Amino acid sequence: MNLLGEQLIEEGYDVVMTREPGGIMISEKIRNIILNNEHTMMESRTEALLYAAARRQHLVEKILPALEAGKIVICDRFIDSSLAYQGFARGIGVEEIWAINKFAIGETMPEKTVLFDVDPEVGLSRINAHKDREKNRLDVENLAFHQKVRAGYLSLVERYPERIQVIDASQPLEKVLEETYRVIKQELEIIR
Amino acid sequence: MNLLGEQLIEEGYDVVMTREPGGIMISEKIRNIILNNEHTMMESRTEALLYAAARRQHLVEKILPALEAGKIVICDRFIDSSLAYQGFARGIGVEEIWAINKFAIGETMPEKTVLFDVDPEVGLSRINAHKDREKNRLDVENLAFHQKVRAGYLSLVERYPERIQVIDASQPLEKVLEETYRVIKQELEIIR
Repeated sequence: MNLLGEQLIEEGYDVVMTREPGGIMISEKIRNIILNNEHTMMESRTEALLYAAARRQHLVEKILPALEAGKIVICDRFIDSSLAYQGFARGIGVEEIWAINKFAIGETMPEKTVLFDVDPEVGLSRINAHKDREKNRLDVENLAFHQKVRAGYLSLVERYPERIQVIDASQPLEKVLEETYRVIKQELEIIR
Repeated sequence: MNLLGEQLIEEGYDVVMTREPGGIMISEKIRNIILNNEHTMMESRTEALLYAAARRQHLVEKILPALEAGKIVICDRFIDSSLAYQGFARGIGVEEIWAINKFAIGETMPEKTVLFDVDPEVGLSRINAHKDREKNRLDVENLAFHQKVRAGYLSLVERYPERIQVIDASQPLEKVLEETYRVIKQELEIIR
């Protein structure tokens, strides 16, 4: 995301890069509750509602003001993550997760979503390679869980083929960036 | 609530008294975020989602296990508070608040709800009389807000006349308790 954003900024686009919870104090505090490893009792619907709450506050405080100012917003994670993690992998169901997130975001959907697809074993080994990165309550779920998350994401691609573009993230970073840039650049030309 | 519960316990009923967030660690932490006076930026839909999240966890950890064990659960506040505060007073709308709370509680609705109705001026003066009670982010809303909350509750009574019983809480405590006892006792006889 950072490399893409920097490239677009160099070309003169007015870009805001953010990631949920995006440094929004209230959303950060909500996220701390979700990811706290002590919270083993957290039920999956509680988790889903908390993600929706953090998403709402980040949207209101950061994304909407940027969009209203005419900026391009690139956001790391959004509603699809909830659909894949809580809807599919936790088994709550996509429709129900969609409903509470609809409450949270209203009509604000991304013009384009890029899914960086990689085998969960590769993904987890990349996380483990960062020794200084603390593993949170979702990282420590087992491989089967992350495989369900991936299957969830891929079924979202079938559901929203126009919006979601899959990119093979097992490729070298340079290639991933190049493909991502092409997808986003094409989208920007459609919008303008 | 405490006086009512004690009376029922003396009569041999197996009663659990609780109040949201009910001492459930995760729910208490969520509530701290909601009521923190520093969180002036909190948007009303964020607030609504957080209440639903805290409600879910309290339900799963405390209410459902008690009900499954055949106990009578008396709970201070539940879904109606969200309908009145966020649905009416914050202006989000009852249907939308109902939807996210339905996600949180499923089919678990109270058999009977007692609404202790009092003029907001009286209610606020009672809160102010407790000098050691810290005033939270909702207490410090103005009188107009609390009047909207009351109007919201009263419209819920019209909507659910079978479930919600209004009790005039401007009466002396003894009279309020007596009326509440009669309502609940009657309900218990219907259930048994």
